[in-house]
Amino acid sequence: MFISLMALLAKTNTDLILLAAGERASSNITYLTGAQLTHAGVCITKAGARLYVSPLDYGKKSKIPITVQKKPLLDTLKKYHSKRIGLEFNATSIVQIKNLKKAFPRAKFIDIGPTLEKIRAIKTTDELELMAKAAQIANQSYKKIIDHFDYRTESDIKAALEYEMAKRGASPAFPTIVASGSNASIPHHATSSAKLNNGLCIIDFGANYHGYCSDCTRTVSIGTPTRIQKKLYATVLNAQLSAITQVTPEKNCADIDKTARTALGKLNKYFIHSLGHGIGIDVHETPNISAKSKDILKKNNVITIEPGIYIPRKLGIRIEDTLVVGNKPNILTNLAKELFVVK
Amino acid sequence: MFISLMALLAKTNTDLILLAAGERASSNITYLTGAQLTHAGVCITKAGARLYVSPLDYGKKSKIPITVQKKPLLDTLKKYHSKRIGLEFNATSIVQIKNLKKAFPRAKFIDIGPTLEKIRAIKTTDELELMAKAAQIANQSYKKIIDHFDYRTESDIKAALEYEMAKRGASPAFPTIVASGSNASIPHHATSSAKLNNGLCIIDFGANYHGYCSDCTRTVSIGTPTRIQKKLYATVLNAQLSAITQVTPEKNCADIDKTARTALGKLNKYFIHSLGHGIGIDVHETPNISAKSKDILKKNNVITIEPGIYIPRKLGIRIEDTLVVGNKPNILTNLAKELFVVK
Repeated sequence: MFISLMALLAKTNTDLILLAAGERASSNITYLTGAQLTHAGVCITKAGARLYVSPLDYGKKSKIPITVQKKPLLDTLKKYHSKRIGLEFNATSIVQIKNLKKAFPRAKFIDIGPTLEKIRAIKTTDELELMAKAAQIANQSYKKIIDHFDYRTESDIKAALEYEMAKRGASPAFPTIVASGSNASIPHHATSSAKLNNGLCIIDFGANYHGYCSDCTRTVSIGTPTRIQKKLYATVLNAQLSAITQVTPEKNCADIDKTARTALGKLNKYFIHSLGHGIGIDVHETPNISAKSKDILKKNNVITIEPGIYIPRKLGIRIEDTLVVGNKPNILTNLAKELFVVK
Repeated sequence: MFISLMALLAKTNTDLILLAAGERASSNITYLTGAQLTHAGVCITKAGARLYVSPLDYGKKSKIPITVQKKPLLDTLKKYHSKRIGLEFNATSIVQIKNLKKAFPRAKFIDIGPTLEKIRAIKTTDELELMAKAAQIANQSYKKIIDHFDYRTESDIKAALEYEMAKRGASPAFPTIVASGSNASIPHHATSSAKLNNGLCIIDFGANYHGYCSDCTRTVSIGTPTRIQKKLYATVLNAQLSAITQVTPEKNCADIDKTARTALGKLNKYFIHSLGHGIGIDVHETPNISAKSKDILKKNNVITIEPGIYIPRKLGIRIEDTLVVGNKPNILTNLAKELFVVK
């Protein structure tokens, strides 16, 4: 959803908006400037918007005018005598708010985080292009490593997949999860240097391209799958496909979550996370696709649909795609989903 | 510096310490548990310390006992009726402190961040081993790519270097900076897909091994360097070597910064950042090696020494090592420092 920076002031009823990045980049600064920066600030007033960067970042590009800032930003901003200052309460620390209150003793501080979150949930054409490119790079990288499957350890697969993404100009959107054998029963398994175990192996990966992310999971079989493994896989795949058919504008996210759980039947007790999440500059964004979610899908939301089952100390299966919400969902991570067998 | 968790309560005069990680891992949780986790919390009371993880992380290892937590952590912790609660004010958001104040309406909140920062600045033997290993992986990876230098773009070098680190079980400590030609004049240049320009090329890279980081920069010459480039390089190298001779326990960090600037002479006007920084779980930690620093070096601090010159739109040179402070500094990133020429 396009919103002008001036409209953002009006919508949040503020006269100054401040966004700050310290040691870590701020996704809202990336959203408003197109740049991924540390030690930077964005300041929006009726006079316009400006990005302040450290001298170490001079020469960087941005959608809004840049000032290279040598002294502390607050010293420069004090002059505004603002009365209603918009901040991201989720990203502003106790230390920062103390300093802000000292610099603006008479101001009221307003949380603009939820407003930005809602705006960011609906992607613009430019954003959709970057996300499609991120997914394309992830898809090509996965095909490359799966076509020449010759790995000894989980971390070998991670290294190869991330190298293919890097060669295509992307970085990992998050640390790639490769979880083989019983490790796959831990949804957030930390990819290890252990030898690949026979059995089902979860590969959960995403590319970050110019600040925008993709997210995809495929489960492959190392060695011939058993009859039971094939049956469990088919059930999870059916749950994923059933949920995807429900993805359409104005749908309740909780209902989509329910569709997947119903399709899983008795296996639902092993499905211990939400069905999916919004994705964009952050890997996890609005809307939330879970049983408790009050979110309603909108056209050009980008979300994941990722049912999984995790049988403790035994096995794990997850199948995940990133898709754009429209009259027909557009699956960006359009990789094959039949069970791939590594002999 | 070893401190028991109970001693931490006494030292900070608190009866409950809470550390939390949301979408991003908390380095203090890594410090206390050895684990890198999102959506996790550490709680320390006189009864002991405990790590709370989400069900997605069941089965993870930690130095302290783990509980898999399904309901919100604050609901569990309310029972403590604590009066003095220690938090990291730098890492606690306005939203979090509001919730904490609601859960503990009578408690006083105390910032334990600076105490933990000071403790973490002095590395234990175990930490030094992990940092030496991180640096070793980075060194081996750099040697590998420099010995077979056959790259077309900045991002080709980044991809190759990060792949070598990944094959050795590490991840990049930060996005590798490769800045060739005039790009090198931007200290925080974002590695681009542009063809490698002839001239000096900065490669700034680090490995993260089991949560601990290394940081190293080498400047190589793409094509035969000019007489002036060689002279400038020799001056920066001399500044780095001069500063390193000053690294010894009880030395003022500001004095070491001054040594480098004096050695740079007239070129100091192009040295637009601090001489160095502490490093450990975070790439930037205490102590700070800058003109304004009040920090004093201690045995088993791990720091970087990284003088650089940046002549706008012309060239950049930086030489950086990670070293352990002792009676003689122990350079972990002990790669050759003569100007390497790529023909």
